[in-house]
Amino acid sequence: MISSFKPRARTLMGPGPSDVNPRILEALGRTTIGHLDPQFIEMMDQTKQLLQYAFQTENELTLPVSAPGSAGMEACFVNLLEPGDKAIVCINGVFGTRMVENVKRCGATAVTVEDDWGKPVDPEKVEAALKANPDAKVLCFVHAETSTGARSDAKTLAALAQQHGCLTIVDTVTSLGGVELRVDEWGLDAVYSGTQKCLSCTPGLSPVTFSEKAADAIRNRKTPVQSWFLDMNLVMGYWGGGAKRAYHHTAPINALYGLHEALVILQEEGLEKAWARHAAMHKSLAAGLEALGIGFVVDAEYRLPQLNAVTIPEGIDDAAVRAKLLSDYDLEIGAGLGALAGKVWRIGLMGHSANAENVSLCLNALESVLVEMGQPVEKGAANKAASAA
Amino acid sequence: MISSFKPRARTLMGPGPSDVNPRILEALGRTTIGHLDPQFIEMMDQTKQLLQYAFQTENELTLPVSAPGSAGMEACFVNLLEPGDKAIVCINGVFGTRMVENVKRCGATAVTVEDDWGKPVDPEKVEAALKANPDAKVLCFVHAETSTGARSDAKTLAALAQQHGCLTIVDTVTSLGGVELRVDEWGLDAVYSGTQKCLSCTPGLSPVTFSEKAADAIRNRKTPVQSWFLDMNLVMGYWGGGAKRAYHHTAPINALYGLHEALVILQEEGLEKAWARHAAMHKSLAAGLEALGIGFVVDAEYRLPQLNAVTIPEGIDDAAVRAKLLSDYDLEIGAGLGALAGKVWRIGLMGHSANAENVSLCLNALESVLVEMGQPVEKGAANKAASAA
Repeated sequence: MISSFKPRARTLMGPGPSDVNPRILEALGRTTIGHLDPQFIEMMDQTKQLLQYAFQTENELTLPVSAPGSAGMEACFVNLLEPGDKAIVCINGVFGTRMVENVKRCGATAVTVEDDWGKPVDPEKVEAALKANPDAKVLCFVHAETSTGARSDAKTLAALAQQHGCLTIVDTVTSLGGVELRVDEWGLDAVYSGTQKCLSCTPGLSPVTFSEKAADAIRNRKTPVQSWFLDMNLVMGYWGGGAKRAYHHTAPINALYGLHEALVILQEEGLEKAWARHAAMHKSLAAGLEALGIGFVVDAEYRLPQLNAVTIPEGIDDAAVRAKLLSDYDLEIGAGLGALAGKVWRIGLMGHSANAENVSLCLNALESVLVEMGQPVEKGAANKAASAA
Repeated sequence: MISSFKPRARTLMGPGPSDVNPRILEALGRTTIGHLDPQFIEMMDQTKQLLQYAFQTENELTLPVSAPGSAGMEACFVNLLEPGDKAIVCINGVFGTRMVENVKRCGATAVTVEDDWGKPVDPEKVEAALKANPDAKVLCFVHAETSTGARSDAKTLAALAQQHGCLTIVDTVTSLGGVELRVDEWGLDAVYSGTQKCLSCTPGLSPVTFSEKAADAIRNRKTPVQSWFLDMNLVMGYWGGGAKRAYHHTAPINALYGLHEALVILQEEGLEKAWARHAAMHKSLAAGLEALGIGFVVDAEYRLPQLNAVTIPEGIDDAAVRAKLLSDYDLEIGAGLGALAGKVWRIGLMGHSANAENVSLCLNALESVLVEMGQPVEKGAANKAASAA
């Protein structure tokens, strides 16, 4: 007989999920009601309004896709692209590569613009690609590369796309709620995110928003969207305004309670204050890591405060350190992904995890483990540097 | 400012979600850990084992898709079908129609076998279609039609498919945990379900299982699966056995806690006992409804105990009755779907909702509302009949 699962608590400082605010855990366990219950419809409207705030948009087509971030990504691609379309895709980490995979599976063609992992997307290269491909329908890029910790200049890239009559598909999985993101002001067209990063909610939903231009493109498709589940024309029959909701699929009721609570918390703190908190905690963590002799993958100018990709010191066993942090400190930090596997750690400071206690715990734990492994590290130096930052 | 959402509790006797066992709600709120945490990997293995029990299968490729039942449906279609393939699809309600939509969006051709809504799928018609289409790759049918409450003979249909060298895609969204379902013994190939029906979990996940024959077909495809998110070749890198899990997408951690608990509860009760409980509660409810002069859409022989589609009495306002049940009794029953909208109610007795208190509450509430609306109903007759049944 298998018995109930009672997990031992961890401090989550990897690339997501981040520590979940206890208020959200409490919300998840609230009584389940129907997906067509008037109470639920009202909560859906509020969730939409709160997402519009988080994305800084007035887009009507703003909602959480009922599946994780990868499905939100796919929702953007399958709704905007048709067979034969051309997309310019910027690759500077794992998630740009995944975008190419999405483009291909839509029967569309991908023109890639490549930058080194750890660098931001280069606007000059993008401009050249836009000029060379006047028939491109969309420009696709990752705002915050979760695999490297690099932030790209979404505002500049979107402006270039507009100058060339191109729509944009933008990955904001790790940026939403953690760094400045202004969908309307920057003119982003199809934007997807996740709940388990800087919103500090549990994983499983993917907030998306589509500009009026993007919604028009979806309405005027020549071919049906290849995914029935992700077809925004159908999804909007349920999420669209008005009292009469057409059943499309059964909404993940309790997961949506959690997202609603996460967004209420964000609204209470205020978006700009949340961005500032992430920046402050990063400054402190970075000072401490430097005191430990640990360097960053990304230049300071382009670093994401919420995702700190740092180089594993020479001679140190990646997996052994992470296993020790987990077993002795119940602390999870992330491994490298793709080309950076085994070379970097990814230390997350996302949402509820971006607090001074976590910074201190992480620095202390890392210091102790490194000392144990014979690294020449001065006891207490990390936290001293962090406090002074 | 929008404040926290605190829903008023309801009794859920619609077509799903069903009442969620408090143990599952408690599990949802447990501390979030990482999707690569060794604790979590162990829980995934247990969930797989418990799903194998629920499906009565030893299929290696058995797991919950990280999205609702519609995505589970899509997972079966996009993985098994390639452009140009032919599928025989049985339609006897809304969900057969949706299957056709899925076939088309895969670039495949659908040959339909139609039966009246409320009737089971006719094996003779299916046999004729199989003979007429020797090039068909899959036979697709709904085991338990949630829109009508009809049960089709999955065992016989699957045997016919095998005789003609056809794979099967079977919708068990409403049957899993509620009526007899034996994936291995009956030889079903690609089977999908939902969590919010007879497993009484919250909505948002879709258990699926693929036979070795189906898994082979997926491995030997000529073209990539059109959905990256639902590509079983990739999903199995994470859900597949072994200690080393490849990250594909971030699993919906807390939702999986809920499903694990739901399956532990099913295992504690025992599958056969759960089937028997659904049958007994149905017998009682049916006797009470008959005493109220309310008839069934489906002949007794083919009725699903967990989904009772009943004809709305002449002259009674469908929406008004449902609204009154909700406002005065906090009781949700379901409206008709598709061709049956406005003509029937769908009363669910699913999972945790299939208990004597719910039967009694439903009969009392319905009786009172019908009396109020001037129906010639004898006070107390419904519950008397139910108790005697």
